[in-house]
Amino acid sequence: MSSAVDLAQFIRSIPDFPKPGILFRDITPLLASPVGLKASVAQLAEHYRGKNVQCVAAAEARGFIFAAPLAIELGVGFVPVRKPGKLPFDTHAFHYELEYGTDSLEVHVDSFSPGQRVLLVDDLLATGGTMEACCKLVERAGGVVAGCAFVIELTGLNGRSKLAGYDVVSLLKYE
Amino acid sequence: MSSAVDLAQFIRSIPDFPKPGILFRDITPLLASPVGLKASVAQLAEHYRGKNVQCVAAAEARGFIFAAPLAIELGVGFVPVRKPGKLPFDTHAFHYELEYGTDSLEVHVDSFSPGQRVLLVDDLLATGGTMEACCKLVERAGGVVAGCAFVIELTGLNGRSKLAGYDVVSLLKYE
Repeated sequence: MSSAVDLAQFIRSIPDFPKPGILFRDITPLLASPVGLKASVAQLAEHYRGKNVQCVAAAEARGFIFAAPLAIELGVGFVPVRKPGKLPFDTHAFHYELEYGTDSLEVHVDSFSPGQRVLLVDDLLATGGTMEACCKLVERAGGVVAGCAFVIELTGLNGRSKLAGYDVVSLLKYE
Repeated sequence: MSSAVDLAQFIRSIPDFPKPGILFRDITPLLASPVGLKASVAQLAEHYRGKNVQCVAAAEARGFIFAAPLAIELGVGFVPVRKPGKLPFDTHAFHYELEYGTDSLEVHVDSFSPGQRVLLVDDLLATGGTMEACCKLVERAGGVVAGCAFVIELTGLNGRSKLAGYDVVSLLKYE
């Protein structure tokens, strides 16, 4: 059963990426494994089945990998949250601060119906800045955040504190 | 049945994006539709079931949306093809020319086993430059291109000519 698969066996730890002192958790072996890929989506779906999720959304690019199959598994649609200039129709934008400089994310103005319950998905919860921006963007566009789901959570960076008030789920935790 | 769903009803045409004179085929309504999203993956899967596809790969970002669920549907793993600097392990890179300037794409050196049959997926076949780069990259990394699959093909740009020798499938064609 997918729920019994230990996903940690598929995570590769790579020292000093993207800079010295950072131990990077590489999900590419998880993705490359038919068992790991399927189980990661199934385990996310287990958390949300019956919870009235009406849409799944994710920021590019790695978030798309889990969010699209999760949307199909839950029987709902998928909304891509994108970097500026990528979406062709009218957009809402949200600007947010990074460690160095700022970034912004966009969704189409017609992405969500009013009050639609949106599950946000990403591969990794680190400082939580990107996910916080996604939550604000969903709300600005008229949706309601049904939850924030991650495959991996780096607990030492305390991203959950930035997402206080939202329901946060992660499949794998690392210090 | 998913095979009977007319995907064209979910495509929005937006004039003058990303620049004047271009009619952009917007897939976000297709993604937002539970029926459209599921049917697009199912229709791609129909083409490749029983064809010995051993892996699905796609370039970021929109390619990920269809490729990851297609990999799960076909019971194989997924390999992300990424822009430079995104992958943490040793990589193969392929540089290619765009209309203005150059770009490059990377995969991990251990992405494919020797001779592994890789299905490449993207949302859109335009000039074919990105997909051609993906094909070269798969081959450089030791894989074999089992096919190139697209949701939309812009036939007037003749991207198929760049992909001569590869098996090309598209679900929707526009001039």
